[in-house]
Amino acid sequence: MVQDRNQKFGIETAGSMMSDDFITLPMRDTVDQTIDYLRKTLYQREDIHYIYVLNDDKLLVGVIAIRELLAAKGEATLQEIMKTKVKTLSPDIDQEQVAQLFQETELVTIPVVDYSQHLLGVVHMDQMLDVMEQEGTEDIYRMASIKSDDFDSQNILTATIGLLYRKRVAWLIILVFMNIFSGAGIATFEELIESNVALVFFLPLLVDSGGNAGAQSATLVIRAMALGEVRMKDWFKMISKEILVSGLLGFTMALAVSLIGIYRGGPEIAFVVALTMVGVVMIGSLIGLSLPFIFSKLKMDPATASGPLITSICDIVGVFIYFGIASAFITLG
Amino acid sequence: MVQDRNQKFGIETAGSMMSDDFITLPMRDTVDQTIDYLRKTLYQREDIHYIYVLNDDKLLVGVIAIRELLAAKGEATLQEIMKTKVKTLSPDIDQEQVAQLFQETELVTIPVVDYSQHLLGVVHMDQMLDVMEQEGTEDIYRMASIKSDDFDSQNILTATIGLLYRKRVAWLIILVFMNIFSGAGIATFEELIESNVALVFFLPLLVDSGGNAGAQSATLVIRAMALGEVRMKDWFKMISKEILVSGLLGFTMALAVSLIGIYRGGPEIAFVVALTMVGVVMIGSLIGLSLPFIFSKLKMDPATASGPLITSICDIVGVFIYFGIASAFITLG
Repeated sequence: MVQDRNQKFGIETAGSMMSDDFITLPMRDTVDQTIDYLRKTLYQREDIHYIYVLNDDKLLVGVIAIRELLAAKGEATLQEIMKTKVKTLSPDIDQEQVAQLFQETELVTIPVVDYSQHLLGVVHMDQMLDVMEQEGTEDIYRMASIKSDDFDSQNILTATIGLLYRKRVAWLIILVFMNIFSGAGIATFEELIESNVALVFFLPLLVDSGGNAGAQSATLVIRAMALGEVRMKDWFKMISKEILVSGLLGFTMALAVSLIGIYRGGPEIAFVVALTMVGVVMIGSLIGLSLPFIFSKLKMDPATASGPLITSICDIVGVFIYFGIASAFITLG
Repeated sequence: MVQDRNQKFGIETAGSMMSDDFITLPMRDTVDQTIDYLRKTLYQREDIHYIYVLNDDKLLVGVIAIRELLAAKGEATLQEIMKTKVKTLSPDIDQEQVAQLFQETELVTIPVVDYSQHLLGVVHMDQMLDVMEQEGTEDIYRMASIKSDDFDSQNILTATIGLLYRKRVAWLIILVFMNIFSGAGIATFEELIESNVALVFFLPLLVDSGGNAGAQSATLVIRAMALGEVRMKDWFKMISKEILVSGLLGFTMALAVSLIGIYRGGPEIAFVVALTMVGVVMIGSLIGLSLPFIFSKLKMDPATASGPLITSICDIVGVFIYFGIASAFITLG
């Protein structure tokens, strides 16, 4: 059944998760008739909170909460007391959007209807708690470069070694091959490094700082996108703000690191390291801010712009910024 | 009001989020009396789904869903039809546990009672969607080392530059000072590096790979802890599995990197790099697996064991493993 619906409406859609457990009544019935009917049929049906009202063509025209029924006059018809503005879902809507609609309304159940308002089923709010948990897990996994498509009922304790391996290996290998570029970058500065080994002391710090700042920016954007707070058009206006924030962050970190720079490498190296720090933090932050938008534009999940991916990109960029600045300011000895 | 309750029960507790919008009735009332009562009082009270039944001492003794009331015989008393096993919440329970209880049950509302079963208020399921969103955001932010305590109604678009700066700066500075150790580690191998600059080409790759594998392990554990799938006692049995998984991952990555190693540095360096890769991936994974347990034991949020923190720790460990292995196998030229 679920299998059929997954095929018909797509997985993780309103259509794939709807249930048949709902009550419909014609709009000419009275409140007293309806209460009598419910008193006969409602026994042990836990999930019934609303009556959906149909017109003569069996199309959904209104909704009445059971508690509203109790508050109405007995001789009123359902047509007189029903709400005609019914919030409905199209069956092909993604479960993440379904959860958002539940959040915006106070409804316990939302009906799923086709284009002509035929009632196909209902989605219950308690399903949303599982949806939000699953969507949260998918986002969090992607952000650590863990494959999240082969979910199933496995958790980390029950998953086999093979499954855990497959979930993790693909991204790790991709990141290895990306790091070839940072290695190649370093190789082009071989002479500079040979005569100034002290530069190497600061290499992990500088490339990491760019990656850390970038991971922060990316995380703020990814989460804001998942919650629907940020859209494509916000990219441009966020960039100017990010330049200021990351400039301040870079400057603060440059101050901290220049003390260590003087101690370990002298004023010349301290200056190069501090200048690099401002550069990598700002460029790392702008990469982290932009990648989720780029993935989103490419119809990929923005959460793919994960910490490890940004770390690797910032490594490459950081190596060139660092040794580029060093080449400009340090005379080969 | 909310302020008072935050003080009385702690923030983000069942007590701080409960509402007064509920209906209580004495257990001797009949179904017919109750329906009459509800028909007079229920108008426009959106959130009423249950009647809570009190005994003569005004203590909570049962619950009836409104739909169950409709399905019952009119002359029955509430005492006869009520469920006496009422799921309740203590007011000091954390909102994350409240959400878990809603997920396990199909209830729309859960009552909050004190130690003697006095009904204090009710928590509604629709509040849980916001709770899960907020808890998800907190976890995701912590995993990118972003401060998550000063939430408020701000989002990334409306937050001031000062707020964004403060959210991000503390951890970045902490990580800068942690990186002093990896710099110090490198400094102790100055001679080795001077005579084998090719070793530096692989430095970002090797320290990053440990950090990436560690971030994956930590993320799997942090998420499993947040969902209540993994507890403290599971640490030991997870370690043996992680040794196998990370060993396989390290071996795969070592194969990939040894090709590059031969090309860029010759067979001796390729061997050192491959051996280091297995070491850093395994040790990084075990650190990533263990840190959330350690934080949890220290009563800190396990999500503090974030990507950036693990990256920095794995950098330090990776530097020593790498140059340690290199010292053992490469003769100083």
